[in-house]
Amino acid sequence: MEMEDTIAAISTSTVSSGGISIVRISGPDAIIIGDKVFKSKKNIKLANVQSHTVHFGNICDNGNEIDEALVIVMKSPNTYTKENIVEIDCHGGILVTKKVLEAVLNAGARLAEPGEFTKRAFLNGRIDLSQAEAVIDIINAKNDYALKSSVNQLDGKLSEKIKNIREIILNNVAFIEAALDDPEHFDIDANVNNLKNDVENCLNNVDNLLKTCDNGRIMHDGVRTVILGKTNAGKSSLLNVLAREERAIVTDIEGTTRDTLEEMINLSGVTLNLIDTAGIRKTDDVVESIGVNKAKKLAEVADLVIYVVDSSRSLDDNDYEIMELIKDKKVLVILNKADLAQVTTAEDIKKIINCETVTISAKQETGIEELEETVKNMFFNGEVKFNEDVYITSTRHKELLKKAENSLKLVLDGIDNMVSEDFLTIDLMAAYENLGLIIGEEIEDDLANRIFSKFCMGK
Amino acid sequence: MEMEDTIAAISTSTVSSGGISIVRISGPDAIIIGDKVFKSKKNIKLANVQSHTVHFGNICDNGNEIDEALVIVMKSPNTYTKENIVEIDCHGGILVTKKVLEAVLNAGARLAEPGEFTKRAFLNGRIDLSQAEAVIDIINAKNDYALKSSVNQLDGKLSEKIKNIREIILNNVAFIEAALDDPEHFDIDANVNNLKNDVENCLNNVDNLLKTCDNGRIMHDGVRTVILGKTNAGKSSLLNVLAREERAIVTDIEGTTRDTLEEMINLSGVTLNLIDTAGIRKTDDVVESIGVNKAKKLAEVADLVIYVVDSSRSLDDNDYEIMELIKDKKVLVILNKADLAQVTTAEDIKKIINCETVTISAKQETGIEELEETVKNMFFNGEVKFNEDVYITSTRHKELLKKAENSLKLVLDGIDNMVSEDFLTIDLMAAYENLGLIIGEEIEDDLANRIFSKFCMGK
Repeated sequence: MEMEDTIAAISTSTVSSGGISIVRISGPDAIIIGDKVFKSKKNIKLANVQSHTVHFGNICDNGNEIDEALVIVMKSPNTYTKENIVEIDCHGGILVTKKVLEAVLNAGARLAEPGEFTKRAFLNGRIDLSQAEAVIDIINAKNDYALKSSVNQLDGKLSEKIKNIREIILNNVAFIEAALDDPEHFDIDANVNNLKNDVENCLNNVDNLLKTCDNGRIMHDGVRTVILGKTNAGKSSLLNVLAREERAIVTDIEGTTRDTLEEMINLSGVTLNLIDTAGIRKTDDVVESIGVNKAKKLAEVADLVIYVVDSSRSLDDNDYEIMELIKDKKVLVILNKADLAQVTTAEDIKKIINCETVTISAKQETGIEELEETVKNMFFNGEVKFNEDVYITSTRHKELLKKAENSLKLVLDGIDNMVSEDFLTIDLMAAYENLGLIIGEEIEDDLANRIFSKFCMGK
Repeated sequence: MEMEDTIAAISTSTVSSGGISIVRISGPDAIIIGDKVFKSKKNIKLANVQSHTVHFGNICDNGNEIDEALVIVMKSPNTYTKENIVEIDCHGGILVTKKVLEAVLNAGARLAEPGEFTKRAFLNGRIDLSQAEAVIDIINAKNDYALKSSVNQLDGKLSEKIKNIREIILNNVAFIEAALDDPEHFDIDANVNNLKNDVENCLNNVDNLLKTCDNGRIMHDGVRTVILGKTNAGKSSLLNVLAREERAIVTDIEGTTRDTLEEMINLSGVTLNLIDTAGIRKTDDVVESIGVNKAKKLAEVADLVIYVVDSSRSLDDNDYEIMELIKDKKVLVILNKADLAQVTTAEDIKKIINCETVTISAKQETGIEELEETVKNMFFNGEVKFNEDVYITSTRHKELLKKAENSLKLVLDGIDNMVSEDFLTIDLMAAYENLGLIIGEEIEDDLANRIFSKFCMGK
C-alpha cells in the first residue's frame, strides 16, 4: 500500500531557530532526491550506503552550496513511515532550514501536509490509529502524567485492550453465525451462558476504560480549578505565589492562556488551570454581583474548588454561603495568613463541609509544598501505575467506547429477553465496529484526514 | 586535547514545539550515557554498534519510559566535536524534549553551555575560530547573501586567505631572523625588495578583505534604507506595498523590529531595513520640524536613500531642498503615481542629482519588480561570485584586519626609512598575530569564551 509520491517537510520547529533543524523526506524517491541535494565529503552516493547510516557533506540547490549537514538514510521497511526516509540535519536557522527544504522540493519532493508522515505510518500499517493519535499527544503533553499516558498509548497498550475485547466479540459472533448455519454441530442454547459471561466481561472492560476518562482529561487538559473566597482572603496572593513558582514553565508552554483571570500552573506534574474569581460577598453593586454569579457558575463545572479562608478572622455569613455552594464539590480549603494569630481552624471548616485542608501563608510563602502534595494526592492517589493502566484522554475514544458500551448493554438485554441470536449479532457487530474505529481498523478516509490534519507539519 | 566531561543539550528550538527534537550528547562518556537512557527495540547496546549508525528504541529515566526515539551514534574523531557524540531524535514537544534531556543529565551528562559543542569542535581542532563564528552566522542568516557568505566562511574560504597572508609574513620574519643570526648565508640587503613586494602584496590582500566589510555588513544586517520625500508623495504607500509583499518573511524572522516607523523587508535576497520618515517641508510647527530634522539625520547615515517623488506634480522648493540634502548619498528615486499624467520625469531629476530612478505606481502596484531588481543591482552588481569571494561580516574581523593593515603600513614606512630589520619584525609579527586572532591561532581563553557565549544552546 505504498504511496506513490515522495514528501518532505521541516520536522523541527519552524517558528524559532535552534542549533539544528531536520528536513525529512519520505517516499519511494527519498534516496534519489537525497542524492540530488547531497554532496558527500567522501564522494559517496546515498543510493549505495547501508540503511540506518549517517553521512556528512553539503546540501546544494542546483549546484549552489546551501549548508553543511548530516544526512541519515533509512531504507524501507524499517522506518517511521515504512517507506524510504532521508533526514537532513542542517543548521537550525529559519532561513537556512527553509533553503534546504526548498532544495529538496526543487529536487522532486512534494511538501508534506501536516501529519502526513504519521498518516503514512498508519496507512502503511506500522502503527494503528490510536498509536498515531498518541504521537500528537506526546508532542502536546504539558505534564508528566499526560506524557506517560501518551507514551503507553504509542506503545500499543490501549490498542491491546481494544483488540482483546474485539476478539472476544468476534469469536461469539462467529459461533452464532456457525450455529445458525450448522445447528447440528453448534448448540446455540447451550452456549448462551458463555455468551452472557463474555459480553459481561467485555462490558466490564469497556466500563473500566470509560472510568479513566475523567483522569485522562485531567492529565491531558489539566485540572479545572476555581479559586473562591471572600474579598481579602488572599486569593490573588495565592495565585501569584503559585504562578511565580512556576512562571518559567508557564511561559514556555505554547498557547498558555495569559488572561488576567486565568493561569496554567504545574504542581508536581499535575497541571492546574487556575481561575481566580471575584471575592464572594452579598452586594448591591450590579457589576460586582455579576462577578460573584460568574464565580458560582465556574465553581459548578470545576474539577477542584480551592476555597481560600482568612484564618486570622472568624467565619461570617459570606463564608457560610460559599460552603453551602461547594459542599458537593471536590474541595481544598486553604487556611491562609498562617503568619497571623489563628482564629479559624481546619476543624471549624470540617464541621461544615467535607474537604481537605492546608494551612499556608501566601505572604511568607510557607505551606506551599504541602499544598502541592495535597493537590497531587487528591487526583492521583500515590504513584499512578502507568505500566498496567491505560487512560482515555481523547473525546473521540470516549464517544466510541460509549457507543460500544451501549451496544453491549443491548446484547445483555437481548439475552435476558430471549431475543433471537441473529439479532444479537447486529449489536455485537456494532460494538465491534465502534471499538475498531478507535484503532482505525474500520476507518473511513474522511475520519483519517480529520485526525491527521490536527498534526503539526513535518510529523 | 579532549575535554574531560560529557555535555548534553537540546539542539533544536527550545521555545516552540515541532515534530522532532534533538538532544545531543558529546564527550568521552556519550555512548555510556546513551546506553543508560536507551532501550533498543532489538536489545542491542550502543557500545557495540558501528559509528554513524541509527537505532530505534525507547528513552528511559530510571526505568520509566519517556519516549520512543531514534538514536544516532557517532564515534570520535569523525564527529562535530571530534568527541563521541550521541544524538537522540525524540518527539518534538517541549515537555517531552525536556524530559529526555533530564534523563540524559541524570545519567551523568552535564548541561552544555551555549555554543559549547562548537567550542569543543574548535578546541579539538576540527574547525578554526572563523569557521566556528560562521556556524552562528549561518543560523542567524536572514537573507541568501548572508547565508552564502557564512557557508563559504564555514568552508574555510576566509581562513585560507588569512593563512596565505600569514604564511608570507612568517616566511619574511623567518628570513630576517635567519639573516640576523647568520649574515654569511642570508643577504638581508639583497632581500629588501622581495620583502617590500611581499608586504605590499599582503597589505593589498588585507585591504581587499577590508573593502568587503560594507557589503559584508549589508549582507549580515541589511541595507540601512531611509525613505524620504514630501508629504503625500506616497512614502507610506510604498512601504506598505513592499512590506505587504514580504509580510510572511518579515513575521517569521525573529526579533524583526516592528516599530511603526521601521520595517525589515527582503527584496530578491537583499534585506532592507526601511525607515519611513516624516514628509519633508519647511514648517513652523515645532513637533513637525523635529521630525524633519530626524529624517535629515537618518539620511546622513543611511546606506541607501529612497527618495519618493510625486511624478504627477512639478518639483518645488521642498524637492530641491531634499535633493541638496542627499546629493552625495547612494540614491534611488522612485517616481510614484505612474497611474496619473506624468509632470516630472526621470530626466528632470537626473539633471540635478546623480541617481538611479524607477517609475512605479504604489496604488496599482506596478513597477515593483523593477524596483526590486534595481535595489539588488545597486548593492550586488550581477550575481555575486561567492565561490571565489569572501565577505567580512564580523566587526571583530574588521577590527583585526585594520590592526594588521596598520602594522603592515608601518613595515612599509620602515623599509622606506631604512629602519633596521629587527624592528621591522616587530610590526610584521603584530600583523601576523592579529590575523591569527581571526582564525583563533593565537587565541586567549577569554576571547574564546566571549565568542561562544553568543551561540544558542545546543550548538
